Amino acid sequence: MKILVVGSVAYDAVETPAGKRESQLGGAATYFSVSASYFTEVGMIGVVGDDFDPADIEMLQSHNIDTSGLVKAEGKTFRWSGEYMEDINTAVTLDTQLNVFGDFEPELDEACANAPYLFLANIDPNLQLKVLNAMAKRPKMVANDTMNLWIDIAKPVLTELISRVDALLINEDEARQLTGEDHLPDAANAIIKLGPNATVIKRGEYGATLFGDGFSFAAPAYPLERVVDPTGAGDSFAGGFMGYLASVDKVDEESLRTAAIAGSTMASFAVEDFGLDRIKNLTKSDIDERFKAFVDLTRFNPLT
Amino acid sequence: MKILVVGSVAYDAVETPAGKRESQLGGAATYFSVSASYFTEVGMIGVVGDDFDPADIEMLQSHNIDTSGLVKAEGKTFRWSGEYMEDINTAVTLDTQLNVFGDFEPELDEACANAPYLFLANIDPNLQLKVLNAMAKRPKMVANDTMNLWIDIAKPVLTELISRVDALLINEDEARQLTGEDHLPDAANAIIKLGPNATVIKRGEYGATLFGDGFSFAAPAYPLERVVDPTGAGDSFAGGFMGYLASVDKVDEESLRTAAIAGSTMASFAVEDFGLDRIKNLTKSDIDERFKAFVDLTRFNPLT
Repeated sequence: MKILVVGSVAYDAVETPAGKRESQLGGAATYFSVSASYFTEVGMIGVVGDDFDPADIEMLQSHNIDTSGLVKAEGKTFRWSGEYMEDINTAVTLDTQLNVFGDFEPELDEACANAPYLFLANIDPNLQLKVLNAMAKRPKMVANDTMNLWIDIAKPVLTELISRVDALLINEDEARQLTGEDHLPDAANAIIKLGPNATVIKRGEYGATLFGDGFSFAAPAYPLERVVDPTGAGDSFAGGFMGYLASVDKVDEESLRTAAIAGSTMASFAVEDFGLDRIKNLTKSDIDERFKAFVDLTRFNPLT
Repeated sequence: MKILVVGSVAYDAVETPAGKRESQLGGAATYFSVSASYFTEVGMIGVVGDDFDPADIEMLQSHNIDTSGLVKAEGKTFRWSGEYMEDINTAVTLDTQLNVFGDFEPELDEACANAPYLFLANIDPNLQLKVLNAMAKRPKMVANDTMNLWIDIAKPVLTELISRVDALLINEDEARQLTGEDHLPDAANAIIKLGPNATVIKRGEYGATLFGDGFSFAAPAYPLERVVDPTGAGDSFAGGFMGYLASVDKVDEESLRTAAIAGSTMASFAVEDFGLDRIKNLTKSDIDERFKAFVDLTRFNPLT
């Protein structure tokens, strides 16, 4: 196992201008794992309820994802309901039911505890910290995501966690909220002062900007003809980003740059259909082709 | 003269989080001309009042800008007052005084009428059309800008004008307003259906996206440490964009891509100080260096 991810596994109710789904497989760890599975071997830590569909476990396993850390508990799977009606970039959360996630205590087997790459997807930072502390040794690279809720109600523990990771992946508005800095490069500098070497500020349809040690890198979003469902775009980005880094087993500037485009590539697929419908059915050549489309979207000749 | 520009020459009152200026030289044609002057020979068509400071004419002429089409009329120079307090991307217009621009009738001498590149900066589309019609022959390339006001009150003539240009440079929100399409690629397609071969959608701190014949190109904004005054960023972009195209005298895909980065380069300088304070004092090596910073901001290696 090259990457371990902890995060939500969920059934989502989603409404977008393209339509409505009552209950589709989702959750940050799910999007992350499926996305990263195209690059490397992934293991998941999480919990599902007794309503969880065995076909969904099979889908994950068909991507060589190690689901042995995915505990089945009595009760219902985590549920999120949201809509993107006014602004395709911003989900309005209608309801969140933690269900089995309320009492979840992560347990790591030996394979999980020794994963060299660790992604702490958006979830209670106390839980993120528990997983980090449960690792057998400090992974080669740890990254995390978070959200406005945790900045509101758990900022001290979140700040402690961020001080211990190598990279924070965070939405633009949340970067501003976390740091109190409106101007993006200031927010990125403030994050890097907390501890990480790098931060990826996710900007929805505007792409993502990576701030590293002495460099910054602008990854555009792909100007897709049709965006169907933005749910999971950020987690799919994270999966491509971390998946690429784990596959080359390097976290230097050059790898981080390519990883950001690998992330953008996976995010661009994720939004093309509802839930995981697009990213669960990709081929290596789909990914190569879309990555090349990013080359074409960004290439230019020098001044003459 | 390689490029002719028609547009406003103004004194602006501007307030931004960085400070306040009561009366600074501005106007779309001014920013455009100074920006383009680093790439090629520029001529201006416009009108100023009898309050116009001769030192400002001298500054323009020191950039080899042909100001013979800049008429001096009785009355006051065009005045715009605006502020960027809540959102650095969006100017709130506090006041506009057309003054001498109210009765302006453009007259083109032979050099102006034969310019091979023409930029119709944001101004009444009736005036843009008059200048286009006054050209001795159809220029090699014509581009225009516009704003929400003209979409509101003069859409038929604006649409006629757009049908006759090669490229429309327009802000994201105005592209949506003009076309009724929320999704950017749809808005770009709708603009191209009106007539132009290309459109540049300007997205403030998110950069600009160029949509051309069978390709799109994402030009990021430079993540500057400090944005002082966004006034004129779009016109400075247009100046770098058109200035580069005129300097290489080509309007193919490769030139358009490089031109978009030349535009982004000039826009990044424009916002670093109030008014024209930064872009009027650049050297060729400042521009080369910033252009290379854009290369560094966007370069990445292929997937391995």
